[in-house]
Amino acid sequence: MTLAFCATTAHKPIAPVSWNTSKGEVVLLDQTLIPQQVVYRTVATVETMVEAISTMVVRGAPAIGIAGAFGVVLAAQSALQRGLEGSVFQEAVVQQALALRESRPTAVNLMWAIDRMLATLYKLIIRHTPQKEICDSLLVEAQLILDEDIAMNRAMGKHGAALLPENARIVTHCNAGALATGGFGTALGVVREAFAQGRCAMVYADETRPRQQGGKLTVWELQEDGIPVTLITDGMSGALMRTLKAQGSGVDAVIVGADRIALNGDTANKIGTYNLALVAKAHGVPFYIAAPSTTFDTSLANGEGIPIEERCGTEIVGVGDSAIAAEHTVVWNPGFDVTPADLISGFITESGVFQASQLPQWLAQQPVSLT
Amino acid sequence: MTLAFCATTAHKPIAPVSWNTSKGEVVLLDQTLIPQQVVYRTVATVETMVEAISTMVVRGAPAIGIAGAFGVVLAAQSALQRGLEGSVFQEAVVQQALALRESRPTAVNLMWAIDRMLATLYKLIIRHTPQKEICDSLLVEAQLILDEDIAMNRAMGKHGAALLPENARIVTHCNAGALATGGFGTALGVVREAFAQGRCAMVYADETRPRQQGGKLTVWELQEDGIPVTLITDGMSGALMRTLKAQGSGVDAVIVGADRIALNGDTANKIGTYNLALVAKAHGVPFYIAAPSTTFDTSLANGEGIPIEERCGTEIVGVGDSAIAAEHTVVWNPGFDVTPADLISGFITESGVFQASQLPQWLAQQPVSLT
Repeated sequence: MTLAFCATTAHKPIAPVSWNTSKGEVVLLDQTLIPQQVVYRTVATVETMVEAISTMVVRGAPAIGIAGAFGVVLAAQSALQRGLEGSVFQEAVVQQALALRESRPTAVNLMWAIDRMLATLYKLIIRHTPQKEICDSLLVEAQLILDEDIAMNRAMGKHGAALLPENARIVTHCNAGALATGGFGTALGVVREAFAQGRCAMVYADETRPRQQGGKLTVWELQEDGIPVTLITDGMSGALMRTLKAQGSGVDAVIVGADRIALNGDTANKIGTYNLALVAKAHGVPFYIAAPSTTFDTSLANGEGIPIEERCGTEIVGVGDSAIAAEHTVVWNPGFDVTPADLISGFITESGVFQASQLPQWLAQQPVSLT
Repeated sequence: MTLAFCATTAHKPIAPVSWNTSKGEVVLLDQTLIPQQVVYRTVATVETMVEAISTMVVRGAPAIGIAGAFGVVLAAQSALQRGLEGSVFQEAVVQQALALRESRPTAVNLMWAIDRMLATLYKLIIRHTPQKEICDSLLVEAQLILDEDIAMNRAMGKHGAALLPENARIVTHCNAGALATGGFGTALGVVREAFAQGRCAMVYADETRPRQQGGKLTVWELQEDGIPVTLITDGMSGALMRTLKAQGSGVDAVIVGADRIALNGDTANKIGTYNLALVAKAHGVPFYIAAPSTTFDTSLANGEGIPIEERCGTEIVGVGDSAIAAEHTVVWNPGFDVTPADLISGFITESGVFQASQLPQWLAQQPVSLT
């Protein structure tokens, strides 16, 4: 890891990706160190950003989209500093943008954000805009992507919270929170809004093996905001639903985020989501996907075409410094799974809550779609 | 941990619990250290055995039953050495036996084995058998429990293997292997027999959070025997079934062990089993419980009465030396869950494979039942 170090104390609200105007650099909250350390890292080059995305210093579909957008700004700045002009300038930026675009394969927000930045670039180039102005305009666009993401999260929070009963008990998986987005959260944005309305009694957080984003990030993020959270392992959700029901209450909803959603509603999200959806179905618990329009991939009719990242087996064979199985152990380590649309009770978006069958019509109205 | 140390190299077949005749002590394979170290510990007192059971140096329902039986022998030896006689001798042994009986609450084999040992004790006391002879007879009885367990495992292996197709792909959870039993395995006994018949293509082992008995024990045990095994996390079983099916093969069966089975077939097993059963059901994959008659509790009409051990939250908040969440994090950590009988395709026992509805008739024929 060659990232520059810039330790600070935590501040609120959580800002996983931001732009340091005075230095012209991106600042990332290092999510590989939470909850043990809250460390912000500065990212000044595209190479460092690619590394930060692929090693999950920044993770979460919307957050890596925003990080990718700022990465394109870094690419343009670099080309400007090297004195490149015209088509050479354009080619240098595009080449680095494509490297960013490929730094993780499953979450479509990254591709969407890069494509939006490139569309902006092409428009400026055609108009013979000076390179310095291009850099400034790209920065404005990236900041807009960030601001829009937070605004979408807040809208989703309102739409989603309205689905929940009083004293709601909610199960979530992985981290679809402030850390995974511009700063409010998709699934946890709904939780935040419900809690603000006094309607969230408890969040049960799947720890989310192998990388434990639930245990590390979701628990920390909710604790920071004083929202009640109970940590469980991924295999406990069924027992939890049965046990709470036997006690006279029950789980009211499962709410998770998404990395890519096909036109029919099939949803790729962190591995373990599909099992949780099956468990919810068996218990009659509503299962919601909370995701902005930028997570939908209208080029895919269904989930079969979603590329699933396979990650290194060492994530399973060991946990931190603790070895579990022998190093030569054969493992299967897909980073994501696909939950079929028929298991999904509703899609909580910035425009409202939709059934899978309503998605194509809504998505056709969206101004920006994946090219 | 006050257990005496006695490091040796691994030997085959795996013997998790055995009696050292020359020293008059129990020898336990320390399952908290596998796969990093293969260490046998000698246990010379009941106190040490209680600690070994509660800290899971020995674990697995049949294995802790056997360990408990040998523990009663240690209790009798201790009373003999202290020169106790008559009712005082009996009372001393019973008191220690009850401590053993309570060292873990869920697996019924422990209670069954202790009760069988106490029944033997009472019979000998009534006949005014000399204390030395009582000790010898109790040792014979404990060794018989061990030998019978292995024989039952081998019978279950044959009955279970007959259920499987050629090139079977099997998912299992936790460790229901040689390590969990007298030495052949319940679920993994079926796997062993199927592999010996050339019919087991792959075992997919759930790592089994929080204590990772799948990742640590099942993987090691199968690797030792050269049986192909792939490690997955507990949240991957659904994705695995979908992915293999899409590739034209599929998972042929889920086979797990049990800690306690009620008369109607409701089955307590390691936490995460219930989720796996729901996932199997959703994919039309047969879900089998492999367990000997000693794991059935005929005193319980259904699973509601099975006591579920809640273990310390530190098992979830950290893994080995690696912290996950803050120490003050609220966790829920049930050691077991109950899978309802209607999710279970069959019970693989030493007498054959039964449907839940056939269990009461079969169990009524068993010579020994829980008192």
